[in-house]
Amino acid sequence: MGSLADTLRDRRQKLARLIDFPAILWSGGSNARNFPANRFPFRASSHFLYFAGLPLPNAAIHLEAGKLTLFIDDPAPGSALWHGETPKREEIAETIGADAAKPLSELTPFLAGAATIAVQDATTWTQQSQLLNRWVLPQSQPEGIDLELTKAIVTLRLIHDAGALAELRKAATVSVAAHKAGMVATANAKIEAEVRAAMESVFIAHNMTTAYNSIVTVHGEVLHNEQYHHPLQPGDLLLADVGGETELGWAADITRTWPVSGKFSPTQRDIYDVVLAAHDTCIANILPGVEYAEIHLVGARVIAEGLVNLGILRGNPEDLVEKDAHALFFPHGIGHLLGLDVHDMEDLGDLAGYEEGKKRSDRFGLGYLRLNRPLRTGMLVTIEPGFYQVPAILNDEKIRSRYQYTVNWERLSQFADVRGIRIEDDVLVTDTGSEVLTAALPNDADTVEHLVNKI
Amino acid sequence: MGSLADTLRDRRQKLARLIDFPAILWSGGSNARNFPANRFPFRASSHFLYFAGLPLPNAAIHLEAGKLTLFIDDPAPGSALWHGETPKREEIAETIGADAAKPLSELTPFLAGAATIAVQDATTWTQQSQLLNRWVLPQSQPEGIDLELTKAIVTLRLIHDAGALAELRKAATVSVAAHKAGMVATANAKIEAEVRAAMESVFIAHNMTTAYNSIVTVHGEVLHNEQYHHPLQPGDLLLADVGGETELGWAADITRTWPVSGKFSPTQRDIYDVVLAAHDTCIANILPGVEYAEIHLVGARVIAEGLVNLGILRGNPEDLVEKDAHALFFPHGIGHLLGLDVHDMEDLGDLAGYEEGKKRSDRFGLGYLRLNRPLRTGMLVTIEPGFYQVPAILNDEKIRSRYQYTVNWERLSQFADVRGIRIEDDVLVTDTGSEVLTAALPNDADTVEHLVNKI
Repeated sequence: MGSLADTLRDRRQKLARLIDFPAILWSGGSNARNFPANRFPFRASSHFLYFAGLPLPNAAIHLEAGKLTLFIDDPAPGSALWHGETPKREEIAETIGADAAKPLSELTPFLAGAATIAVQDATTWTQQSQLLNRWVLPQSQPEGIDLELTKAIVTLRLIHDAGALAELRKAATVSVAAHKAGMVATANAKIEAEVRAAMESVFIAHNMTTAYNSIVTVHGEVLHNEQYHHPLQPGDLLLADVGGETELGWAADITRTWPVSGKFSPTQRDIYDVVLAAHDTCIANILPGVEYAEIHLVGARVIAEGLVNLGILRGNPEDLVEKDAHALFFPHGIGHLLGLDVHDMEDLGDLAGYEEGKKRSDRFGLGYLRLNRPLRTGMLVTIEPGFYQVPAILNDEKIRSRYQYTVNWERLSQFADVRGIRIEDDVLVTDTGSEVLTAALPNDADTVEHLVNKI
Repeated sequence: MGSLADTLRDRRQKLARLIDFPAILWSGGSNARNFPANRFPFRASSHFLYFAGLPLPNAAIHLEAGKLTLFIDDPAPGSALWHGETPKREEIAETIGADAAKPLSELTPFLAGAATIAVQDATTWTQQSQLLNRWVLPQSQPEGIDLELTKAIVTLRLIHDAGALAELRKAATVSVAAHKAGMVATANAKIEAEVRAAMESVFIAHNMTTAYNSIVTVHGEVLHNEQYHHPLQPGDLLLADVGGETELGWAADITRTWPVSGKFSPTQRDIYDVVLAAHDTCIANILPGVEYAEIHLVGARVIAEGLVNLGILRGNPEDLVEKDAHALFFPHGIGHLLGLDVHDMEDLGDLAGYEEGKKRSDRFGLGYLRLNRPLRTGMLVTIEPGFYQVPAILNDEKIRSRYQYTVNWERLSQFADVRGIRIEDDVLVTDTGSEVLTAALPNDADTVEHLVNKI
């Protein structure tokens, strides 16, 4: 693996083979929190990061024929008093191997004929729109050369190079440590927030941040739970979906579910093993050329089969998946792309996640699938099957009557102590199958119990 | 102290005595991070929080004649699947004691003649501007009824009521615990980030957040240092400016400086004691009616006197302050207002910090003073003297020649191991003097050493 400058040069040369017009990518700026001087942490646009390497606020890069011109202003005079000596334009340019470097005021002559991608913050996309004299909006489908640029960048970012993988492995390693810290902290924690603190402090100690808002909850059945005030009770399962992001912006995404008491109840362990079987079977089926939607269905079938064996569902697993019965308990997709974004390139809508010509399904069990492409060597995906008893689904009158005989509702009631379980790992597609980047974190019930008991 | 509803009713009744027109305050929304579904944590506008109590995203309140009407939409159908059951409009209205509650679509008839204050996020201030048909910009001085409303809110928020003080004490208590955790964590930490992690995890464990981006640095001479990668070396001082914010938005702001080794060098202790003397003298002088700018000058004089005694400055302390010699080492203000914002109401420019008719000084030593008002019972201010060897100041040719004989440069060079020291506490003005809300955190050199050595 070469230097950052080598990695970036290689990326822009690959881009030059895909498009024959220039591109300008802006990094964006930080957002004010409660007053202008108190700002949320800066997060550079992922497309900028991919080609510029460093999280430089208020910068832009011009890419053309494999050459990179960096546009950034030197620190204002007087800035050294408050911020100390910060790197000058020329030093940054050298670090990232820029072919030229200029102040932002010299950007204008480079705008003609350039494509771009909208940055999330309103100040920046407004500026992009003004400078390029067309709407550049983060929530709209790009058009013309912007769409061509977007597709070219998707092509590149789908397959991770060595530079990306080094960062992704780092994100995975520190996230594994965070989960272990969370398990170990559980015994002495009174509320969810204390476990979250133990986990996130691992990122802070590594100068990393969370890649997304952590889920650390005894109510795993609330899929996007961002509350952390519930007390930890001995019979609870704690679901932690927590992943870190490196300083250069690369993400990990891991979920583990463990018993607060250090011991799964028999019903909890039964369901846990069903979810784990789905997880393992999905990963075993990953291979270049395989459709990711097929991996989703493999997971769904294993879950259906497991629930039949436990007496919760009635029928043949294949048929149950056909009628979306698995989705009563596993209502989301089996996973998504992972890279600079935890849902990689989701700012582009489905342009990255869905192969050209493929559309979101209107089936309940498939509509939430975020990735629908054939797998290729170098893609990084999550595999994250789950089982949840979501009141909004299972108490819905229509659903209950539709699945009146498919679900053994009485048998299900015996699993009341299983509100939500998810097991999620980050899986790199390789020529011969896959490599689990987060494999250092155990996921079998016995070892998980052992870690929770290791105070 | 009454309920939240009682506190809020009292605040809006007080507002009604100051203005005779309606006001609408928006809460704001969260900002997208790298893609629309991955968002920065929501932080409600402080003015909204002051009257609405709870951090409700995408809400507005209409205040008129002491009555509050809440405008907020119920969760979208299907939201329960992802977010669980969340409180409905009527429940929220009851919690905050609203006089009425309506969906946002019914806001229009309430807009006529209403004053407002700009929210920081661009989506919200754009919406405010459109709905009210005038520019409502976070960085512009308000005009007309908006200015009248602003001044009325400043009048109220300057003096903290019992409800505010309960939250401010909570923020102080948890921030004290964070600093103790940081001191104790230092012995086993290899880089600044590890100490920061120990401190911030205390906030996370209490479902709180940082009130501002933490400063945890061995380069205290960089006043707004937000880097955490430096190694901790035995001879270093670690400066930590870290404060928490409660769930309802109230802030603390504490700085301590401690020796990485657990023992101040003689030179470090000499300067530390000068800064501490300034800190203590300032607090001893706090009394209703005293000008805060006078407190600043008291601090400046004690620092000048201490540096004369150490042989670093030459002359009479009073004269040295007159010619800004203290500001070579103490270039910022003695402190600021504290409340819902760490620099309370700084979104209003100097409308809160500066009494009507007072303007920022153009003197180097006074221009950065954020508060210039007579103190009154119920005001909460920080007191934060410091000593820094800022290269951008002390290596400046002009400054060195101007203060050629005022500073004993050779003597100063013996204090090279003191790059930056600050001691900051949160001080409530009381009828008889003051109460230090953060007094539970020791600041004398011996006890600080003791805490750092307590692994």
